[in-house]
Amino acid sequence: MEVVTAPKPWTSYILGQSSLFPILICILSQSYRIRADDGGMEELTTEKEAEESHRQDSVNLLTFILLLTLTILTIWLFKHRRVRFLHETGLAMIYGLLVGVILRYGIPSTSYHNKTPPSCSLKVGPVSTLLLNVSGKFFEYTLKGEINSREIHNVEQNDMLRKLTFDPEVFFNILLPPIIFHAGYSLKKRHFFRNLGSIITYAFLGTAISCFVIGNLMYGVVKLMQVLGQLTDKFYYTDCLFFGAIISATDPVTVLAIFNELHADGDLYALLFGESVMNDAVSFVLSSSIVAYQPTGANMHTFDASAFFKSVGIFLGIFSGSFAMGAVTGVVTALVTKFTKLHCFPLLETALFFLMSWSTFLLAEACGFTGVVAVLFCGITQAHYTYNNLSEESTKRCKQLFEVLHFLAENFIFSYMGLALFTFQNHVFSPIFIIGAFIAIFIGRALNIYPLSFLINLGRRHKISGNFQHMMMFAGLRGAMAFALAIRDTATYARQMMFTTTLLIVFFTVWVFGGGTTPMLSWLHIRLSGCLVHERLVSRAAVLCSGLESLQQQRRRACLNCGITSALFSTQTSLLLVCFYS
Amino acid sequence: MEVVTAPKPWTSYILGQSSLFPILICILSQSYRIRADDGGMEELTTEKEAEESHRQDSVNLLTFILLLTLTILTIWLFKHRRVRFLHETGLAMIYGLLVGVILRYGIPSTSYHNKTPPSCSLKVGPVSTLLLNVSGKFFEYTLKGEINSREIHNVEQNDMLRKLTFDPEVFFNILLPPIIFHAGYSLKKRHFFRNLGSIITYAFLGTAISCFVIGNLMYGVVKLMQVLGQLTDKFYYTDCLFFGAIISATDPVTVLAIFNELHADGDLYALLFGESVMNDAVSFVLSSSIVAYQPTGANMHTFDASAFFKSVGIFLGIFSGSFAMGAVTGVVTALVTKFTKLHCFPLLETALFFLMSWSTFLLAEACGFTGVVAVLFCGITQAHYTYNNLSEESTKRCKQLFEVLHFLAENFIFSYMGLALFTFQNHVFSPIFIIGAFIAIFIGRALNIYPLSFLINLGRRHKISGNFQHMMMFAGLRGAMAFALAIRDTATYARQMMFTTTLLIVFFTVWVFGGGTTPMLSWLHIRLSGCLVHERLVSRAAVLCSGLESLQQQRRRACLNCGITSALFSTQTSLLLVCFYS
Repeated sequence: MEVVTAPKPWTSYILGQSSLFPILICILSQSYRIRADDGGMEELTTEKEAEESHRQDSVNLLTFILLLTLTILTIWLFKHRRVRFLHETGLAMIYGLLVGVILRYGIPSTSYHNKTPPSCSLKVGPVSTLLLNVSGKFFEYTLKGEINSREIHNVEQNDMLRKLTFDPEVFFNILLPPIIFHAGYSLKKRHFFRNLGSIITYAFLGTAISCFVIGNLMYGVVKLMQVLGQLTDKFYYTDCLFFGAIISATDPVTVLAIFNELHADGDLYALLFGESVMNDAVSFVLSSSIVAYQPTGANMHTFDASAFFKSVGIFLGIFSGSFAMGAVTGVVTALVTKFTKLHCFPLLETALFFLMSWSTFLLAEACGFTGVVAVLFCGITQAHYTYNNLSEESTKRCKQLFEVLHFLAENFIFSYMGLALFTFQNHVFSPIFIIGAFIAIFIGRALNIYPLSFLINLGRRHKISGNFQHMMMFAGLRGAMAFALAIRDTATYARQMMFTTTLLIVFFTVWVFGGGTTPMLSWLHIRLSGCLVHERLVSRAAVLCSGLESLQQQRRRACLNCGITSALFSTQTSLLLVCFYS
Repeated sequence: MEVVTAPKPWTSYILGQSSLFPILICILSQSYRIRADDGGMEELTTEKEAEESHRQDSVNLLTFILLLTLTILTIWLFKHRRVRFLHETGLAMIYGLLVGVILRYGIPSTSYHNKTPPSCSLKVGPVSTLLLNVSGKFFEYTLKGEINSREIHNVEQNDMLRKLTFDPEVFFNILLPPIIFHAGYSLKKRHFFRNLGSIITYAFLGTAISCFVIGNLMYGVVKLMQVLGQLTDKFYYTDCLFFGAIISATDPVTVLAIFNELHADGDLYALLFGESVMNDAVSFVLSSSIVAYQPTGANMHTFDASAFFKSVGIFLGIFSGSFAMGAVTGVVTALVTKFTKLHCFPLLETALFFLMSWSTFLLAEACGFTGVVAVLFCGITQAHYTYNNLSEESTKRCKQLFEVLHFLAENFIFSYMGLALFTFQNHVFSPIFIIGAFIAIFIGRALNIYPLSFLINLGRRHKISGNFQHMMMFAGLRGAMAFALAIRDTATYARQMMFTTTLLIVFFTVWVFGGGTTPMLSWLHIRLSGCLVHERLVSRAAVLCSGLESLQQQRRRACLNCGITSALFSTQTSLLLVCFYS
């Protein structure tokens, strides 16, 4: 909609200003401003508001871009020095935390208004659009959300921090789709389909078990808190189950990255990756189903069989609908790329591939299915069918495009997580709940992995060894999905507590468990796969490449010929590998 | 901010629904909905609102994605059949128009509330944040903008159409940067710097002349309208100058695409491209300076020398500041890529390049400069310095990434233009103004090109021929920048009239002048450049490629070997070219 805005000339910043910290200057010096005058005090105010808002938006995005840039440079440094204890996602979180600290405690609150915002009373409930009548002129306001009565005085003062928080829907509409799609698109088909049964078992049964176990354990914890008088508001059983559902979404991105680099066993990789990707989808739909649980009668939180089965129906319906939608879009893309000669125009082909994949997500969301699940299966289908119809050029372009989008989106979310610890206004830190949650997820993971592995092994030829099971147990990191599901609705006390706890769980698991992956791999004697020698060479060559430079000072040639280099130096590489992995 | 939301299960759509038109179903059937109950009528309402809003957002984005997909498929078809009269941007506009018609007249208005939104009165002027007190619960509202008193009854009814309109800042923050950056990054350096003096003359002096001429002519038209009683509200001289500034931004993307394909003269290409890219920047800053013109005294629209010089100062200050910022960021990126070994990790290098280029834009905006100008000079600087430090892999990746972003953003804007003809609520169609504007831009362009070319030719060795001047005159298409500047602020009657007129000018110039480029090129006997044979072969090979398939039925091999194919078929190609261009 056409907001009343005007271009923003701030010549006072330019004329006579030379600053090394433009952002700080922009934030701190608000006194000089040249206003475009269209006539009327009201328009003056709205233009000023619009300018301020635009400037703030630019600063927000800039903060994140700087975070990501720092992360990238540090990642390079770590790769260069072969640091493995801290993966890029853990690093992004740390930078997010640092910036959060600076913003919270370093920058003085820039309150534009010195008073609490005006309020008006209405008998009718909150509507999405409200009109304000100021001397005959009408101004339109949109509903932002409910606000805690104790926070109303902080509305303006914490504007800076609040503006650095995004509408959670940004995660689900913009950031998660590339991540999930890339996950689906890059599932190594052979290993994935070979372990399909096990993966599905872990994803569905395992997540359900985990959700149930954690939910019940947390209910016990909540009851304990109630007895101890630690609970200041309502916390229902359904809330506990909801927590169980969202916290069951694992995201072992750190572990998998290390597996990839070290080329750990292909089956283990497939099991972990496949499980994490599928259980993200299952958690998502499960949490929706739990929220949709609506028993008849006055008490909304008793067990009602018909409501329960309705929820189960919702789960199955949404999941299969999303699956179908994703698969269909994947097939349609495959058909379009097969029967047109688009592959002669890589740009068009890549753009089309991108758009159709993204449209899956939106179509599913528009129809009430789950975009995340749809886009996952779309990615798997595209990898299976469309991939073969693309030209070589388009294949590379698509892969690179989604790779860079995935990279940026993932690190953005993890930076945001770090930031959210300080920018989120309604944290509820409850030590008992937090400790209880850590114990619960540990037990939940154990009761997920071990019993199911036993059952699965009855039907597998190639058993999942004890060590693999321990590794899977260990690799139950939480990440983007759990965070996004938790931040989605933080209106109530219970949800706020869950959000805070989820955040801390993510931090802990990513840093501690992620960092401990390499030692754990050696401790469990998990061997490398024997059939990935070439990939190993190429990956080592990149590291060699940076080393060679100082030796040969033929930087460009060495990297351009990474392929040739890896072949030439295969002996050295093998030696290096032997030294590294022994 | 954490909006009160809940996940959106719409099982009624799924259970027992099998529909081929899920979008229409979603739009039309709103009756069945399962609501998550967190307790309280107010939260129920906000959740319903949030669900509705999310679904609407998904449908909006989906509409645009489908538009873009249709555009891509049609572009392919046109390229396949070598249709040149309609370029992709013109095509995107047509599809936007079609969808706009369907939405405006085809779909019944889905008004969620059957009444005008409630309003409350305050003495104090509009604030950015307003609180609503409903029975002790507080809800926060943000200012959307001023609304015409006659429109308040239409607020909900036209919700659908209004939601398909974006905040104009989306254009400036998300869509224009990739387009402008790509323009700067792909300026063919040799030709650009060879014609730098001419380009700068056209861009600065030419735009100023054009602005002044058009502004004055339009003022005459407005006076005429006033005499004839056609003017219903205020329309100042500064408004006319503003119109002159925004409509001086040319965007000959269609013409240039055809030049590229047919490999028209390199100097002409450089002059047109360079001029259009630079005059976008100049128009932008010029329009800002005009808006910033703020004479002292009661009458805001008389000539005031000090205010005038202040505006000039603003122009120079913003332009040079943005230039400096863009150039500095480009150089910093160059230094970072030079002194790190990032080129061994193409993904990191590409991501960094992308982020630093984008940060230029935001940094400039945050500091009150012009992001568009900054990002343009950043692109030029990156092409000049950073390009040489990237690895070959990264070079390709960056080029392809920006190419696809540019492609999507540009077609999105042009689709949106088509749509805006029907979704914009406040059009002011004034035949006199429109006809006057067409005449004015024609005269303005003529008084820009011909006198300046004469002056420039006095200093050039390689004169700009008369035919080149006619072509440049002809190629004064308007596009994305003019549209974006016009839509930015449509609060007043004058601005609304200007927006409507700009839209029509863009349509006409893109379709008519864009379509007439190829005939015009032959009519003016503008020859092809002699030194681009290889590029020509590669481009022909793509067309040949699709032709060869039916001959050889070795689709994949033919395209993969496009390079070999072009060499093998060089004789055929030359023959084809001779036939085509004679």
